[in-house]
Amino acid sequence: MTEDDLNTRHAEKMRRIKAARDRMMETKTEEKGLIMVHTGSGKGKSSSGFGMILRCIGHGMPCAVVQFIKGTWVTGEAEMLRNRFAGECRFFVSGEGFTWDTQDRERDIAAARRGWEIAQEQILDPEIRFVLLDEINIALRYDYLDIDEVVDFLLTRKPQMTHVCLTGRNAKPELIEAADLVTEMTLLKHPFRDGIKAQKGVEF
Amino acid sequence: MTEDDLNTRHAEKMRRIKAARDRMMETKTEEKGLIMVHTGSGKGKSSSGFGMILRCIGHGMPCAVVQFIKGTWVTGEAEMLRNRFAGECRFFVSGEGFTWDTQDRERDIAAARRGWEIAQEQILDPEIRFVLLDEINIALRYDYLDIDEVVDFLLTRKPQMTHVCLTGRNAKPELIEAADLVTEMTLLKHPFRDGIKAQKGVEF
Repeated sequence: MTEDDLNTRHAEKMRRIKAARDRMMETKTEEKGLIMVHTGSGKGKSSSGFGMILRCIGHGMPCAVVQFIKGTWVTGEAEMLRNRFAGECRFFVSGEGFTWDTQDRERDIAAARRGWEIAQEQILDPEIRFVLLDEINIALRYDYLDIDEVVDFLLTRKPQMTHVCLTGRNAKPELIEAADLVTEMTLLKHPFRDGIKAQKGVEF
Repeated sequence: MTEDDLNTRHAEKMRRIKAARDRMMETKTEEKGLIMVHTGSGKGKSSSGFGMILRCIGHGMPCAVVQFIKGTWVTGEAEMLRNRFAGECRFFVSGEGFTWDTQDRERDIAAARRGWEIAQEQILDPEIRFVLLDEINIALRYDYLDIDEVVDFLLTRKPQMTHVCLTGRNAKPELIEAADLVTEMTLLKHPFRDGIKAQKGVEF
Protein backbone atom coordinates (compact mmCIF):
# COMPACT_ATOMS: atom_id res chain seq x y z
CA MET A 1 0.00 0.00 0.00
CA THR A 2 1.40 3.44 -0.92
CA GLU A 3 1.54 6.36 1.52
CA ASP A 4 -1.31 7.96 -0.46
CA ASP A 5 -3.48 4.87 0.00
CA LEU A 6 -2.65 4.84 3.69
CA ASN A 7 -3.61 8.50 4.02
CA THR A 8 -6.88 8.03 2.17
CA ARG A 9 -7.84 5.00 4.24
CA HIS A 10 -6.92 6.84 7.42
CA ALA A 11 -9.12 9.81 6.49
CA GLU A 12 -12.06 7.48 5.76
CA LYS A 13 -11.62 5.56 8.97
CA MET A 14 -11.37 8.77 11.01
CA ARG A 15 -14.50 10.16 9.31
CA ARG A 16 -16.38 7.02 10.38
CA ILE A 17 -15.01 7.27 13.93
CA LYS A 18 -15.92 10.95 14.11
CA ALA A 19 -19.46 10.33 12.82
CA ALA A 20 -19.98 7.53 15.37
CA ARG A 21 -18.54 9.70 18.10
CA ASP A 22 -20.67 12.71 17.16
CA ARG A 23 -23.81 10.52 17.27
CA MET A 24 -22.77 9.20 20.68
CA MET A 25 -21.93 12.68 22.01
CA GLU A 26 -25.38 13.97 20.94
CA THR A 27 -26.85 11.71 23.60
CA LYS A 28 -24.54 13.18 26.27
CA THR A 29 -26.35 16.38 27.02
CA GLU A 30 -26.83 16.43 30.75
CA GLU A 31 -24.72 18.15 33.36
CA LYS A 32 -24.68 16.93 36.90
CA GLY A 33 -22.56 17.33 39.99
CA LEU A 34 -20.65 14.08 40.22
CA ILE A 35 -19.65 11.87 43.10
CA MET A 36 -16.20 10.67 42.04
CA VAL A 37 -14.00 8.07 43.70
CA HIS A 38 -10.27 7.46 43.08
CA THR A 39 -9.15 4.23 44.67
CA GLY A 40 -6.73 1.32 44.16
CA SER A 41 -3.14 0.77 45.22
CA GLY A 42 -1.58 2.62 42.27
CA LYS A 43 -0.24 6.16 42.17
CA GLY A 44 -2.41 9.04 40.95
CA LYS A 45 -5.42 9.09 43.27
CA SER A 46 -4.59 12.37 45.02
CA SER A 47 -2.61 13.90 42.17
CA SER A 48 -5.52 13.57 39.74
CA GLY A 49 -7.76 15.13 42.39
CA PHE A 50 -5.35 18.07 42.53
CA GLY A 51 -5.23 18.12 38.70
CA MET A 52 -9.00 18.69 38.73
CA ILE A 53 -8.56 21.44 41.34
CA LEU A 54 -6.12 23.10 38.91
CA ARG A 55 -8.77 22.81 36.17
CA CYS A 56 -11.43 24.36 38.44
CA ILE A 57 -9.17 27.28 39.34
CA GLY A 58 -8.44 27.72 35.61
CA HIS A 59 -12.17 27.98 34.92
CA GLY A 60 -12.79 30.31 37.86
CA MET A 61 -14.87 27.68 39.70
CA PRO A 62 -14.58 28.16 43.49
CA CYS A 63 -13.44 24.91 45.12
CA ALA A 64 -12.34 23.40 48.42
CA VAL A 65 -9.94 20.69 49.56
CA VAL A 66 -10.09 18.81 52.86
CA GLN A 67 -7.05 16.62 53.58
CA PHE A 68 -7.99 13.83 55.98
CA ILE A 69 -4.77 11.97 56.60
CA LYS A 70 -1.79 13.73 55.18
CA GLY A 71 -1.08 16.96 56.91
CA THR A 72 2.32 17.11 58.54
CA TRP A 73 4.44 16.97 55.36
CA VAL A 74 5.32 19.97 53.28
CA THR A 75 3.78 19.11 49.93
CA GLY A 76 3.86 20.99 46.66
CA GLU A 77 0.08 20.99 46.49
CA ALA A 78 -0.35 22.39 50.03
CA GLU A 79 2.24 25.04 49.24
CA MET A 80 0.32 26.12 46.14
CA LEU A 81 -3.11 26.07 47.76
CA ARG A 82 -1.99 27.99 50.84
CA ASN A 83 0.20 30.58 49.18
CA ARG A 84 -0.98 31.02 45.63
CA PHE A 85 -4.65 30.10 45.46
CA ALA A 86 -5.91 31.18 48.87
CA GLY A 87 -8.70 33.25 47.28
CA GLU A 88 -9.69 30.58 44.77
CA CYS A 89 -9.55 27.32 46.63
CA ARG A 90 -10.24 26.82 50.33
CA PHE A 91 -7.75 24.44 51.89
CA PHE A 92 -8.29 22.54 55.15
CA VAL A 93 -6.15 19.94 56.83
CA SER A 94 -7.80 17.75 59.43
CA GLY A 95 -5.31 14.92 59.62
CA GLU A 96 -2.06 14.79 61.53
CA GLY A 97 -0.07 12.40 59.39
CA PHE A 98 -0.86 8.79 58.72
CA THR A 99 -2.53 6.66 61.38
CA TRP A 100 0.73 4.84 62.08
CA ASP A 101 2.37 8.18 62.88
CA THR A 102 -0.14 9.31 65.47
CA GLN A 103 -0.70 5.81 66.98
CA ASP A 104 -3.61 7.41 68.78
CA ARG A 105 -7.01 6.15 67.74
CA GLU A 106 -9.04 8.74 69.62
CA ARG A 107 -7.05 11.61 68.18
CA ASP A 108 -7.40 10.12 64.67
CA ILE A 109 -11.16 9.74 65.12
CA ALA A 110 -11.48 13.32 66.38
CA ALA A 111 -9.44 14.59 63.41
CA ALA A 112 -11.54 12.59 60.93
CA ARG A 113 -14.81 13.86 62.43
CA ARG A 114 -13.52 17.44 62.34
CA GLY A 115 -12.63 16.93 58.67
CA TRP A 116 -16.07 15.55 57.90
CA GLU A 117 -17.76 18.52 59.61
CA ILE A 118 -15.74 20.89 57.43
CA ALA A 119 -16.43 18.74 54.36
CA GLN A 120 -20.19 18.95 54.91
CA GLU A 121 -20.07 22.74 55.31
CA GLN A 122 -18.06 23.12 52.11
CA ILE A 123 -20.30 20.78 50.12
CA LEU A 124 -23.43 22.62 51.30
CA ASP A 125 -21.93 26.06 50.54
CA PRO A 126 -23.67 27.25 47.35
CA GLU A 127 -20.53 29.18 46.33
CA ILE A 128 -18.42 26.03 46.07
CA ARG A 129 -18.55 23.97 42.87
CA PHE A 130 -16.00 21.23 43.56
CA VAL A 131 -14.86 19.62 46.82
CA LEU A 132 -11.89 17.27 47.07
CA LEU A 133 -11.92 14.98 50.13
CA ASP A 134 -8.36 13.73 49.98
CA GLU A 135 -7.66 10.37 51.68
CA ILE A 136 -11.12 10.23 53.25
CA ASN A 137 -11.24 6.53 52.28
CA ILE A 138 -8.61 5.79 54.94
CA ALA A 139 -10.84 7.34 57.61
CA LEU A 140 -13.81 5.37 56.28
CA ARG A 141 -11.88 2.13 56.13
CA TYR A 142 -10.96 2.28 59.82
CA ASP A 143 -14.56 3.28 60.63
CA TYR A 144 -13.39 6.62 62.00
CA LEU A 145 -16.29 7.93 59.95
CA ASP A 146 -19.55 6.09 59.41
CA ILE A 147 -19.88 5.04 55.78
CA ASP A 148 -23.70 5.14 55.87
CA GLU A 149 -23.67 8.69 57.18
CA VAL A 150 -21.23 9.82 54.47
CA VAL A 151 -23.06 8.09 51.61
CA ASP A 152 -26.44 9.30 52.85
CA PHE A 153 -25.16 12.89 53.01
CA LEU A 154 -23.69 12.71 49.50
CA LEU A 155 -26.86 11.24 48.00
CA THR A 156 -29.42 13.40 49.79
CA ARG A 157 -27.79 16.68 50.85
CA LYS A 158 -25.14 17.43 48.21
CA PRO A 159 -26.35 20.26 45.94
CA GLN A 160 -27.17 18.84 42.52
CA MET A 161 -24.44 20.64 40.59
CA THR A 162 -21.60 20.29 43.11
CA HIS A 163 -18.82 17.81 42.29
CA VAL A 164 -17.26 15.84 45.13
CA CYS A 165 -14.14 13.72 44.66
CA LEU A 166 -13.18 11.20 47.36
CA THR A 167 -9.73 9.60 47.26
CA GLY A 168 -7.81 6.84 49.00
CA ARG A 169 -7.21 3.13 48.68
CA ASN A 170 -9.75 0.52 49.79
CA ALA A 171 -12.86 2.56 48.98
CA LYS A 172 -15.86 0.96 50.68
CA PRO A 173 -18.31 -0.90 48.42
CA GLU A 174 -21.16 1.34 49.62
CA LEU A 175 -19.28 4.40 48.36
CA ILE A 176 -18.50 2.78 45.00
CA GLU A 177 -22.15 1.86 44.66
CA ALA A 178 -23.24 5.46 45.34
CA ALA A 179 -20.64 7.09 43.05
CA ASP A 180 -21.12 8.29 39.47
CA LEU A 181 -17.50 7.92 38.40
CA VAL A 182 -15.03 5.46 39.87
CA THR A 183 -11.44 4.98 38.79
CA GLU A 184 -9.20 2.32 40.20
CA MET A 185 -5.53 3.24 39.98
CA THR A 186 -3.79 -0.08 39.43
CA LEU A 187 -0.11 -0.45 40.18
CA LEU A 188 1.71 -2.07 37.30
CA LYS A 189 5.20 -1.00 38.36
CA HIS A 190 6.55 1.13 41.20
CA PRO A 191 10.15 2.20 41.86
CA PHE A 192 9.78 1.81 45.66
CA ARG A 193 10.52 -1.84 44.93
CA ASP A 194 13.94 -0.83 43.63
CA GLY A 195 14.91 1.26 46.63
CA ILE A 196 13.81 4.61 45.25
CA LYS A 197 12.33 6.93 47.86
CA ALA A 198 9.31 9.23 47.57
CA GLN A 199 10.42 12.25 45.56
CA LYS A 200 9.43 15.93 45.35
CA GLY A 201 7.10 16.73 42.49
CA VAL A 202 6.23 13.05 42.03
CA GLU A 203 4.78 11.81 45.31
CA PHE A 204 4.37 15.09 47.21
CA MET B 1 -13.99 -5.15 74.14
CA THR B 2 -14.11 -1.71 75.76
CA GLU B 3 -13.15 1.49 73.97
CA ASP B 4 -9.99 1.59 76.11
CA ASP B 5 -9.00 -1.91 74.97
CA LEU B 6 -9.68 -0.92 71.38
CA ASN B 7 -7.51 2.17 71.72
CA THR B 8 -4.66 0.22 73.34
CA ARG B 9 -4.76 -2.47 70.67
CA HIS B 10 -4.87 0.16 67.98
CA ALA B 11 -1.80 1.93 69.39
CA GLU B 12 0.11 -1.37 69.53
CA LYS B 13 -0.87 -2.34 66.01
CA MET B 14 0.09 1.09 64.67
CA ARG B 15 3.47 0.93 66.49
CA ARG B 16 4.16 -2.39 64.76
CA ILE B 17 3.09 -0.98 61.38
CA LYS B 18 5.23 2.12 61.90
CA ALA B 19 8.27 0.05 62.90
CA ALA B 20 7.87 -2.21 59.83
CA ARG B 21 7.36 0.83 57.63
CA ASP B 22 10.38 2.65 59.06
CA ARG B 23 12.56 -0.42 58.40
CA MET B 24 11.23 -0.59 54.85
CA MET B 25 11.72 3.15 54.27
CA GLU B 26 15.34 2.90 55.44
CA THR B 27 16.02 0.84 52.32
CA LYS B 28 14.46 3.54 50.09
CA THR B 29 17.30 5.96 49.93
CA GLU B 30 17.92 6.59 46.27
CA GLU B 31 16.66 9.43 44.16
CA LYS B 32 16.33 9.04 40.43
CA GLY B 33 14.60 10.77 37.58
CA LEU B 34 11.68 8.52 36.77
CA ILE B 35 10.06 7.42 33.54
CA MET B 36 6.37 7.32 34.46
CA VAL B 37 3.47 6.04 32.40
CA HIS B 38 -0.25 6.66 33.01
CA THR B 39 -2.38 4.43 30.85
CA GLY B 40 -5.70 2.53 30.87
CA SER B 41 -9.20 3.50 29.84
CA GLY B 42 -10.13 5.14 33.15
CA LYS B 43 -10.14 8.83 34.02
CA GLY B 44 -7.15 10.46 35.71
CA LYS B 45 -4.23 9.92 33.33
CA SER B 46 -3.78 13.55 32.32
CA SER B 47 -5.20 15.07 35.49
CA SER B 48 -2.70 13.25 37.69
CA GLY B 49 0.06 14.43 35.34
CA PHE B 50 -1.16 17.99 35.86
CA GLY B 51 -1.41 17.33 39.62
CA MET B 52 2.32 16.52 39.57
CA ILE B 53 2.99 19.71 37.59
CA LEU B 54 1.18 21.60 40.38
CA ARG B 55 3.47 19.87 42.90
CA CYS B 56 6.57 20.80 40.91
CA ILE B 57 5.51 24.45 40.69
CA GLY B 58 4.83 24.36 44.45
CA HIS B 59 8.40 23.15 45.05
CA GLY B 60 9.92 25.65 42.60
CA MET B 61 11.01 22.88 40.20
CA PRO B 62 11.04 24.19 36.60
CA CYS B 63 8.90 21.93 34.41
CA ALA B 64 7.46 21.60 30.91
CA VAL B 65 4.30 20.20 29.34
CA VAL B 66 3.91 19.07 25.72
CA GLN B 67 0.33 18.27 24.69
CA PHE B 68 0.31 15.90 21.76
CA ILE B 69 -3.33 15.44 20.89
CA LYS B 70 -5.57 17.82 22.75
CA GLY B 71 -5.05 21.38 21.71
CA THR B 72 -8.13 23.02 20.28
CA TRP B 73 -10.29 23.00 23.43
CA VAL B 74 -10.12 25.64 26.12
CA THR B 75 -9.09 23.64 29.16
CA GLY B 76 -8.64 24.73 32.75
CA GLU B 77 -5.10 23.37 32.77
CA ALA B 78 -4.07 25.22 29.58
CA GLU B 79 -5.59 28.39 30.96
CA MET B 80 -3.54 28.09 34.15
CA LEU B 81 -0.29 27.17 32.43
CA ARG B 82 -0.55 29.93 29.83
CA ASN B 83 -1.74 32.74 32.07
CA ARG B 84 -0.61 32.01 35.58
CA PHE B 85 2.50 29.85 35.44
CA ALA B 86 4.17 31.06 32.26
CA GLY B 87 7.44 31.67 34.12
CA GLU B 88 7.37 28.37 36.02
CA CYS B 89 6.16 25.79 33.55
CA ARG B 90 6.77 25.85 29.81
CA PHE B 91 3.65 24.85 27.90
CA PHE B 92 3.62 23.58 24.31
CA VAL B 93 0.75 22.29 22.21
CA SER B 94 1.63 20.23 19.17
CA GLY B 95 -1.70 18.56 18.50
CA GLU B 96 -4.71 19.97 16.73
CA GLY B 97 -7.49 18.04 18.43
CA PHE B 98 -8.04 14.33 18.33
CA THR B 99 -7.13 12.33 15.25
CA TRP B 100 -10.77 11.92 14.31
CA ASP B 101 -11.12 15.71 14.24
CA THR B 102 -8.28 16.39 11.84
CA GLN B 103 -8.90 13.29 9.66
CA ASP B 104 -5.57 14.11 8.10
CA ARG B 105 -2.86 11.55 8.75
CA GLU B 106 0.01 13.59 7.35
CA ARG B 107 -0.92 16.63 9.40
CA ASP B 108 -1.23 14.45 12.52
CA ILE B 109 2.18 12.88 11.86
CA ALA B 110 3.77 16.28 11.34
CA ALA B 111 2.21 17.56 14.58
CA ALA B 112 3.37 14.50 16.54
CA ARG B 113 6.95 14.84 15.20
CA ARG B 114 6.97 18.53 16.06
CA GLY B 115 5.81 17.63 19.56
CA TRP B 116 8.52 15.02 19.90
CA GLU B 117 11.22 17.49 18.78
CA ILE B 118 10.08 19.91 21.47
CA ALA B 119 9.87 17.10 24.02
CA GLN B 120 13.48 16.09 23.38
CA GLU B 121 14.71 19.67 23.75
CA GLN B 122 12.85 20.07 27.04
CA ILE B 123 14.06 16.76 28.43
CA LEU B 124 17.67 17.60 27.51
CA ASP B 125 17.44 21.10 29.01
CA PRO B 126 19.37 20.94 32.30
CA GLU B 127 17.06 23.61 33.82
CA ILE B 128 14.00 21.41 33.52
CA ARG B 129 13.27 18.85 36.23
CA PHE B 130 9.96 17.36 35.10
CA VAL B 131 8.45 16.93 31.63
CA LEU B 132 4.84 15.87 31.03
CA LEU B 133 4.18 14.39 27.57
CA ASP B 134 0.40 14.46 27.60
CA GLU B 135 -1.36 11.97 25.30
CA ILE B 136 1.88 10.95 23.58
CA ASN B 137 0.66 7.34 23.79
CA ILE B 138 -1.97 8.11 21.15
CA ALA B 139 0.75 9.28 18.75
CA LEU B 140 2.79 6.17 19.55
CA ARG B 141 -0.17 3.85 19.13
CA TYR B 142 -0.83 5.07 15.58
CA ASP B 143 2.91 4.88 14.85
CA TYR B 144 3.07 8.62 14.22
CA LEU B 145 6.15 8.37 16.38
CA ASP B 146 8.54 5.45 16.42
CA ILE B 147 8.35 3.64 19.75
CA ASP B 148 11.96 2.41 19.53
CA GLU B 149 13.22 5.93 18.97
CA VAL B 150 11.24 7.29 21.93
CA VAL B 151 12.25 4.48 24.31
CA ASP B 152 15.87 4.66 23.23
CA PHE B 153 15.94 8.41 23.84
CA LEU B 154 14.38 8.06 27.29
CA LEU B 155 16.78 5.31 28.34
CA THR B 156 19.99 6.74 26.93
CA ARG B 157 19.65 10.52 26.63
CA LYS B 158 17.33 11.61 29.46
CA PRO B 159 19.39 13.31 32.18
CA GLN B 160 19.52 11.04 35.23
CA MET B 161 17.53 13.26 37.60
CA THR B 162 14.85 14.43 35.15
CA HIS B 163 11.36 12.98 35.55
CA VAL B 164 9.30 12.30 32.43
CA CYS B 165 5.62 11.35 32.58
CA LEU B 166 3.93 9.94 29.46
CA THR B 167 0.13 9.66 29.36
CA GLY B 168 -2.56 8.16 27.18
CA ARG B 169 -4.43 4.91 26.80
CA ASN B 170 -2.94 1.86 25.08
CA ALA B 171 0.66 2.47 26.17
CA LYS B 172 2.96 0.30 24.05
CA PRO B 173 4.53 -2.71 25.83
CA GLU B 174 8.02 -1.41 24.97
CA LEU B 175 7.30 1.78 26.90
CA ILE B 176 5.86 -0.10 29.89
CA GLU B 177 8.96 -2.30 29.89
CA ALA B 178 11.26 0.75 29.93
CA ALA B 179 9.31 2.68 32.60
CA ASP B 180 10.06 2.89 36.33
CA LEU B 181 6.51 3.61 37.44
CA VAL B 182 3.39 2.53 35.58
CA THR B 183 -0.18 3.14 36.68
CA GLU B 184 -3.18 1.78 34.84
CA MET B 185 -6.30 3.85 35.38
CA THR B 186 -9.11 1.31 35.30
CA LEU B 187 -12.65 2.41 34.62
CA LEU B 188 -15.02 1.00 37.21
CA LYS B 189 -17.89 3.42 36.52
CA HIS B 190 -18.32 6.40 34.22
CA PRO B 191 -21.28 8.78 33.93
CA PHE B 192 -20.93 9.07 30.11
CA ARG B 193 -22.93 5.86 30.12
CA ASP B 194 -25.84 7.71 31.71
CA GLY B 195 -25.91 10.57 29.23
CA ILE B 196 -23.72 12.96 31.22
CA LYS B 197 -21.42 15.08 29.07
CA ALA B 198 -17.81 16.08 29.69
CA GLN B 199 -17.86 18.81 32.31
CA LYS B 200 -15.65 21.78 33.22
CA GLY B 201 -13.30 21.14 36.09
CA VAL B 202 -13.78 17.38 35.77
CA GLU B 203 -12.74 16.38 32.25
CA PHE B 204 -11.15 19.62 31.02
